[in-house]
Formats: sequence, C-alpha cells, structure tokens
Amino acid sequence: MSANPSGKQVAVIVGATSKWQSDGRNTQLAHGQDIDDSDIPVGIRWGIGGAIAQKFAGEGFFTVLTTRTAANAAPLADAIRAQGGECMIVELDLVSEDSVTTAFETIRNEAGDPEVLIYNAGYLEGRDLPPERELLEFIDVEMFDTAQHISSRGPFLVAKQVLPAMRKKGEGSFFFSNNSKSLRGRKRNTGESLYYPRVMMRTLSQVLTEEYSEHGIHVANVVIDGLIDSPGTRSLPKAQENPGIIMNPVKIAEGFFYLHTQDRSCWTHELQMTPHPTVPSV
Amino acid sequence: MSANPSGKQVAVIVGATSKWQSDGRNTQLAHGQDIDDSDIPVGIRWGIGGAIAQKFAGEGFFTVLTTRTAANAAPLADAIRAQGGECMIVELDLVSEDSVTTAFETIRNEAGDPEVLIYNAGYLEGRDLPPERELLEFIDVEMFDTAQHISSRGPFLVAKQVLPAMRKKGEGSFFFSNNSKSLRGRKRNTGESLYYPRVMMRTLSQVLTEEYSEHGIHVANVVIDGLIDSPGTRSLPKAQENPGIIMNPVKIAEGFFYLHTQDRSCWTHELQMTPHPTVPSV
Amino acid sequence: MSANPSGKQVAVIVGATSKWQSDGRNTQLAHGQDIDDSDIPVGIRWGIGGAIAQKFAGEGFFTVLTTRTAANAAPLADAIRAQGGECMIVELDLVSEDSVTTAFETIRNEAGDPEVLIYNAGYLEGRDLPPERELLEFIDVEMFDTAQHISSRGPFLVAKQVLPAMRKKGEGSFFFSNNSKSLRGRKRNTGESLYYPRVMMRTLSQVLTEEYSEHGIHVANVVIDGLIDSPGTRSLPKAQENPGIIMNPVKIAEGFFYLHTQDRSCWTHELQMTPHPTVPSV
Amino acid sequence: MSANPSGKQVAVIVGATSKWQSDGRNTQLAHGQDIDDSDIPVGIRWGIGGAIAQKFAGEGFFTVLTTRTAANAAPLADAIRAQGGECMIVELDLVSEDSVTTAFETIRNEAGDPEVLIYNAGYLEGRDLPPERELLEFIDVEMFDTAQHISSRGPFLVAKQVLPAMRKKGEGSFFFSNNSKSLRGRKRNTGESLYYPRVMMRTLSQVLTEEYSEHGIHVANVVIDGLIDSPGTRSLPKAQENPGIIMNPVKIAEGFFYLHTQDRSCWTHELQMTPHPTVPSV
Repeated sequence: MSANPSGKQVAVIVGATSKWQSDGRNTQLAHGQDIDDSDIPVGIRWGIGGAIAQKFAGEGFFTVLTTRTAANAAPLADAIRAQGGECMIVELDLVSEDSVTTAFETIRNEAGDPEVLIYNAGYLEGRDLPPERELLEFIDVEMFDTAQHISSRGPFLVAKQVLPAMRKKGEGSFFFSNNSKSLRGRKRNTGESLYYPRVMMRTLSQVLTEEYSEHGIHVANVVIDGLIDSPGTRSLPKAQENPGIIMNPVKIAEGFFYLHTQDRSCWTHELQMTPHPTVPSV
Repeated sequence: MSANPSGKQVAVIVGATSKWQSDGRNTQLAHGQDIDDSDIPVGIRWGIGGAIAQKFAGEGFFTVLTTRTAANAAPLADAIRAQGGECMIVELDLVSEDSVTTAFETIRNEAGDPEVLIYNAGYLEGRDLPPERELLEFIDVEMFDTAQHISSRGPFLVAKQVLPAMRKKGEGSFFFSNNSKSLRGRKRNTGESLYYPRVMMRTLSQVLTEEYSEHGIHVANVVIDGLIDSPGTRSLPKAQENPGIIMNPVKIAEGFFYLHTQDRSCWTHELQMTPHPTVPSV
Repeated sequence: MSANPSGKQVAVIVGATSKWQSDGRNTQLAHGQDIDDSDIPVGIRWGIGGAIAQKFAGEGFFTVLTTRTAANAAPLADAIRAQGGECMIVELDLVSEDSVTTAFETIRNEAGDPEVLIYNAGYLEGRDLPPERELLEFIDVEMFDTAQHISSRGPFLVAKQVLPAMRKKGEGSFFFSNNSKSLRGRKRNTGESLYYPRVMMRTLSQVLTEEYSEHGIHVANVVIDGLIDSPGTRSLPKAQENPGIIMNPVKIAEGFFYLHTQDRSCWTHELQMTPHPTVPSV
Repeated sequence: MSANPSGKQVAVIVGATSKWQSDGRNTQLAHGQDIDDSDIPVGIRWGIGGAIAQKFAGEGFFTVLTTRTAANAAPLADAIRAQGGECMIVELDLVSEDSVTTAFETIRNEAGDPEVLIYNAGYLEGRDLPPERELLEFIDVEMFDTAQHISSRGPFLVAKQVLPAMRKKGEGSFFFSNNSKSLRGRKRNTGESLYYPRVMMRTLSQVLTEEYSEHGIHVANVVIDGLIDSPGTRSLPKAQENPGIIMNPVKIAEGFFYLHTQDRSCWTHELQMTPHPTVPSV
C-alpha cells in the first residue's frame, strides 16, 4: 500500500470529476467555453464527485479519485492535499472490462481494499441532439451503448471488483450517486442525456441491498433530485432566475457521510434529496 | 412562555410514550404483566418517542411530550431533566378535536410555537383479535374508527394547529414516525394492529411536502422498517432468536435529527430505515 | 328477491349517478346552471357510474343503483329499462352506518347477494375554496370528515356488507372506480376536491386483494386517469380545446367488464386507463 | 408482401417459442429430457408466446414468429395453419444488431409493416448456477451481457425498427411480455435466471409510453406474475402441489388482445396478472 502508508480506510469515488467543472464537457457544451472558477468555493468546483471526495478525505479516509484522464482530476487532488487530506488518482474507463480490472488491482495494491465505494459516473450522450431527433428512434446505437456501459455494465463490473473483500470483512459501503431519471422511464426531452439506462443503477442498488445487507455491506441509491451547484451550472439561466433550486454539493456530501455512519440496525437504502422549492420527483 | 423561560426552540413529540414501555399496553398484552426496565439503558426505555424526545432535548430544544395520561410520561420527563434537558408534559387525546385544540393552545402559551413537530402516535386496535377474526369483515367499526382517528384525522388536526405559524415564520420541521405498513395496503395477520390506515399518515406527508416545502417547512415520513428496541420488544421470542433485527431507537432518533438539520437545498422527504439482516419492505 | 324475480346475478353500483350529469352539483358549480343533455348519447349522460350500470345490465345483470336521493337516478333507471335491462334504485348515504346497513339489507332481500360490487362514490368538498384557501391548513374539519366518509369509512362499511357472502360462495368481484389522485398524496390545487383521502380507497383495494383473492374474490382498483365524458365535462374549456383528452365512459365500462370476466388464473388488481395524448400519472 | 398476399394486418411475436416447450432448454434443464406434449392442449404447448401468436392469428392477423432457429417454431406454425391462420417464421438473434436489421427487412418486405409488436424474448442465464455462486459477484460477465442483450439492447434495437412506420401511420401496439422481476431489483435465488436486467424492458416501456402515446402508438408492459402453463412447467413439483398457481396462457393472451383493442381514450400502459391464490408482486 505504497500510496497509503498510514493504512487509512479507503474511499473510492468512481467518476470524481465533473462534466460541469470549469473545463468540463457539459460546461463547454452549455457555455461554449471554459469558465473561470477561481472565485467559486473549493467545495463546489468539481460538483458532487469533488465534494464527496473532499468530505471523505476530511473525515480521514484515503480517497481514490477515478477518472478517464488523470489530468482532469489533478486540481481536485491538489485541493484535497491542501486541506490536509490524502488521495490518489487512478485512470479508469468504464467501457473497458480490462480497464476496470486493472484500475482496481492498482487500488488494492497501492491503497488497499476499499471500505467505501461511491459510484458517481455519468455521461452526456444524447444531450446535443437537435429537437427533430428527440424521439427514441433517433438515438444512435453507439449512444445507447455508452449510456449502458456507464449506468449498467460499469457498475456491475465495479461491484464484482469490490464486493468480495467487503463481504469477507463483513463491512463496507457501496453507494450510487444518481439522479431523478433513475426512478422510472421518462421521455427524453431535447437537451437531456439518454437517462433511462440510469434506472439500472438504481435496480442494481436494490439487488445488492437484498443480497449483501446480511453480509454487513451497506448499499444505497442516492437520488439527487435537482441541479447541483458547480462552475457550469450556477451560471445557467434557470439557476440565475431561481437560485433556490441549486443544490449545495457540500451538503449533499454530508448526506453520503451520514449514510456511511448509520448504525447497521437502521440502514437507509435509498436517499432522495430535493431542493425545497421543488416538488420531489416520483 | 412560563414553562420555557429561556425561550428555547420547541420540539413537540405527539405520542412520546410507548405502548412497549415497561408498563405499556403492548407489553402487558405480550407478556401478561409489566416488565422491570431498571437495567435497560435510558435511551431505550420509552421506544422511539422517548429516544427522539431525549435527542432533541439533548440538542437544546425545549421538548413537549404529549400523551393521553400525564403519568405515563412522567418517568421520561424525569430522565430528560436528569440529563440536563427541559421539557413539559401536555395531555392530548387525538380522537377529540377539542383536546387537540386545547393542547396546542397550552403549548403555544406555555412553551411557544413549535419549531419541530414529530407525530409518533400509534394504536393497537386489532392486535388481540383471534385467528378466526383475521379478515377485514371481522374488524369492528369502533376499531376502524380509532385507527382512523390516530392515523388520519389526528395528523390532519395537528397539522392545522402547527403549520400556520411555521409558514409565517418560513421554517419548521413536521415529521411522521411511521412503519412499513404505511407503504401500501397489506393483509392484516393475526396479532397485528389494523395498520392500513397508517398509509394516510404517509399520504398526508406527501401532501404537505408538496404544499409546504416552498414555504420553508420540511415535511418527511420516516419508515421505521422493523422492531424497535424497548422493554417490551427485546424479550419477544423473535428478538431473542435474532437480535440483529432489533433497531436501536437512539440511532433512529439521530436520523430524525439529521433530517431536521439538512440544508434546505437538499431535503429528504421520506427516510426508510431497515435493520441490516432484513430485506427492506416495499 | 321480489325485485329480481328471474334471479339474475346482481351488480351493485355504489354511487351510480354523476355529479357531472345534466343537473349534477359539479355541472351546476362549473356552468352556473343545468345542461340540456338530450343530444348526448345515453351511454355518456351519467358519467362512469351510469356507463358501468348500463354495461352490466346489458350483459344480463340485475343492476342496483345506489344514490343519496332516488330521483337523481331515475333517468338512468329509465334508460336501462328502455335498453331491455333490469335494475332497482336504493337510497344510500355513505356517511351513515345505519344507512349502509339498511341499504344492503334491502339489496339482499329484494335483489339477492351481490355478485359484483363497484364502488363509484365521489365528493366535491374543497372544490369551491378560493385561491387564498388553497393550503391544507384552510380545509375545514367538516370537509375532511366528508371526504373521509366517502373514501375511507364508506368503503370499509360496504366491504363488511358484501364480502361475507362472496367469501362463502367462493366468488365475486369488488372493484373501486378511482382517479389518479389515489396514487399518492399531491398538492390540492384551487378548484380541486380534497382528493388525498382517495388514497385509502386504493389502499383498501390492496388490503382486500391480499386477504380475499385466495377466497375467490376478485378485488381491483381502477385508476381513471383523466376527464370522463359527461354532460358537465364535455363543455369545459379544456375539453373543447383538446377533445382527445376526454375519456369515453362506455369504453371505460368495458374495462370493468373485462376485469370481471378475467380467468382467475390471471387476475389484474389495478387497472389504470389514460387518454392517449396524456402522460400517465404516477 | 409475398408471404402475406391478402395484406392482413401484421402481428410480430419476438420470441414466439418457449424455453418450456416439450423440447425447450428449461424443460431439459428441469426434467433432464424432452417431454411428450401430445396430450396437452395446443393453446398451451408453446407457453405465452405460442398462445399470443395463436390468438392474434385467430383474430385475423398475419402472424410473424421470430426465433433463433426456425425449426423451433415449426410445430407452432403448423398449429396456427391448422387453425386456419396465416404466419411465417423469421430467424432473429437479438444479440446481433445485423440480425435484427435483417429480420425486420424481411418482415417488412414479405409481410408488411407490423401493426402489433409483442416482445416476448427471454433467457435462462444464471439458472444453473450452484448455491455457492448465488451472489452477484459470481455472475460471469458473459451471463450479464446475454441478459442485457435480451432485455435491454434487444428491445431498443427492435423499437428502432418498428416505431418509425407506426408513428407515420399514427397507430400501432408495442407490448412487452414481462415477469414480476421487472418491477424492481431483487435478490437472485439459486435456480433463477439473472432477472434484474428485465427492469429495463419495463423502463423502456415507460419511456416509449411517454414518447409515443401522443403519436397514436399504444405501449404497455405486461407483468405475468406467476408460472405459465406449458409442457415443462405443469409437471414441476410446485405446480403439481398447487395447480391454482398455474396461469393459463390462453387467458393471458386474451389480456394482450384486450389491450390491443382498447379505445385510445383509455389506454392501459401496465397490466399485471396474478393467479388468484397468490399475493401480487410489488
């Protein structure tokens, strides 16, 4: 465990960076350019993945940040270290079974078996389709395959990597960071990603809850039911007009930590969070 | 506010005592007598209502304990005061609109407007019906009426008492302490209460969530999905055989307090808690 | 069985008339006067209750029409007889336990034990509240009590009247005619009834499904998820602008009859029907 | 339309054969050999797919039977023709995008655009895993991939093939034949298939309902909530002990036909069917 010499407990955040960070793909898509985030609090700069990573690092975990390209997570790693935390970056491409296997070998060897796994991966396929291609029949198979890799096959592969050790130890937390589109199949509106495969993240969470709770592993699906504050989202028109609907990722991350610290006599397996001016999604 | 001279924030627990406390009606029904609770930790002696009351008192709230007969709550009030907390007991019969009105006038006059209202009332109607009277056709109208008073009309009356002041102030918490039978209509098995009216507590929680969130009031239904530790439950055969299924009320109460302290950008409106060896109810 | 000398199977429609019929209370509330229905097809004149009654009468059932005031159902009874069907009107006030008891004694004595019971009762409490009284805190206790009588206590009383004979015979159908507000608690919008107690109709349907299916009784909740065609609704502005959202009660009634004729190896216990231009309620 | 010279409306049953037919893979797995089905009524010999095909053929549709290997469907095609119906067999492997494309080109060319598409494909991956491999961590990636091809990617590909023509015509029915494991993620018990990807069939049904209803296409998920009668299932011990739990596929097929004939003012988008001695799955 060369990267974690003091043997801290390990928290892995799969998809620790944000497509809405200052140079994220959604930010570029929505704003046409990068955004200067130097005046944005550090807890918010990398969306929910960054806030969770900082929270668990602050609580004493060795935090593993996975991302497709290490450079994307470097500023977040710097921030964690500046706050006195410890972390490492591991490259991981959820589309590739080999990449998943290799990444978790690296994590086990250099950091140790994960105590906490938070699956925060996302995708933006479908988001740039024009209105005349709104219906499902116009979704390319490639878009579908990517959405399915991130939201269905990827979590399955990750689960196979981390659950055996958690089960043998009799403890561990496996949480999904999800959105309201995971609650049921909905129409895809122009400008939205092809969200419906996200239902499979929630479904896998339900499966693992039933299969692994008795083995001491706490599984939960977290439904973040609104727009998360970040460099790319806070300047969107709808956020400017109604700031009350913007969710604070620092506070959401506290919810993940609350789940992790729940007594096993009273585990919550789905936690939905909704900004107060909004009717909760069903 | 003669009872609360220092003007602490007020938390009202409707139904603060437990039918499973040492001399509770369920305890007597299950065990044929009272139980000596002197060796049971004080956090557990009065079930979930007592644990919530102690938690909020410990966090600095002036805690109002409602009960049908003041003497039932006296030991709990003593325990709170012994822990350095402040509280008062108010008699309240949810079947009577006059009683509800009078009780909340007393609360407002002597303690102040509630900041937190936790509806924890229960009933045991139906629990002692023999197997040959298991089906709905054998439920007496009186039993149905009592169940409906506690789980449907009572919360409606209480809501009318506390929501106006919360709305004007723009803040407050209104939480329901409920069980898994509130999730949908289920068969009543011999030995169980007539639970199905409890669905109305959850339904009211959903109504108030949609109506009052935008006014700054946090509404939530808490589904306690198992057997709560208490003098009367811990000695039941099923608890003796599988202690892992017993839920710690002190830890459940922490969940209520977590809800109360959630940032309003990320409110949870339903929190289900399940002991780890158990498949969550749906 | 003086009213049913040929001993036809008996179908009881509780609430066979419509508040949207030509002289109904909703019609008067929405239009300020009665409406001439002479050019409206007879299948549609009395909303869903009238259509169900005509369907079952047409299929050979002796049909019992319950209503608070017999005169309200006289035109419907005339229509059924003109179509060659047989029926009787029985006055029934769901608020009164005595009235429920007496009405079903009459039904049993004059028509026979019901083979089919369709609970179609409704209420309009809350519908005329002004916008400044939209929130729950402004609902009068009397309004709540009426809503609860019709949607919770009433069906309980009716179930106690008809289930014993069905159970002994080992067959029967008990169907609820409900709306989408029965699916969960929702905000009451100005102009709407206090719908949330309707969740209890659905909950009772779930309870009876679990308790009585094995005894050969088919229980189902029918969610009519839109505006039903009737004299009072077809002339509403929203119906005039978008006729596709108007549901044909004759076709809905066929759905009830399909349920009744399902083989007991494949019973459906909830049937939601939605007009095609509309997203189904959840 | 060489195969359908009289230009009948076309109903396609994807997966028209049964793994429980006399020589089906589940039959062989459960019984160790083929079963003689000569004394079993023809409506039941090929499970639900065969019953649906016979029903729509009997109602005048030209019925297309897809299957991976044409020989598997030959006896069913013979039965349909013996009943006076018309049909054709088309080979289709849902794992292959090319196969899906080619099969529907054949269908369009030789039969015409489908009016009705019923997706009845299944898989048995996971069913023969031993008890020590019950947990998700022991599921091979290949098993997962097959399950996902049949229940998620396959229906997506089929939808892309048939929806454009239905949309342009403004009518059509697209129904999923599914089981209760599609309702939420559940533990896989030893002896069961890896069912959880079936949730995606239901989810796609919800997506298409919201996207295509307004275009006149009726989409529905049918939850067959029990054991379907067939040569391979009727001799299972649990069926022998409790024949009431066996569902009649001929009657289930009538439910599909009822859905197809519903008036578009009252479309049902999910139809669950449960045998009467059984509590409905949730």
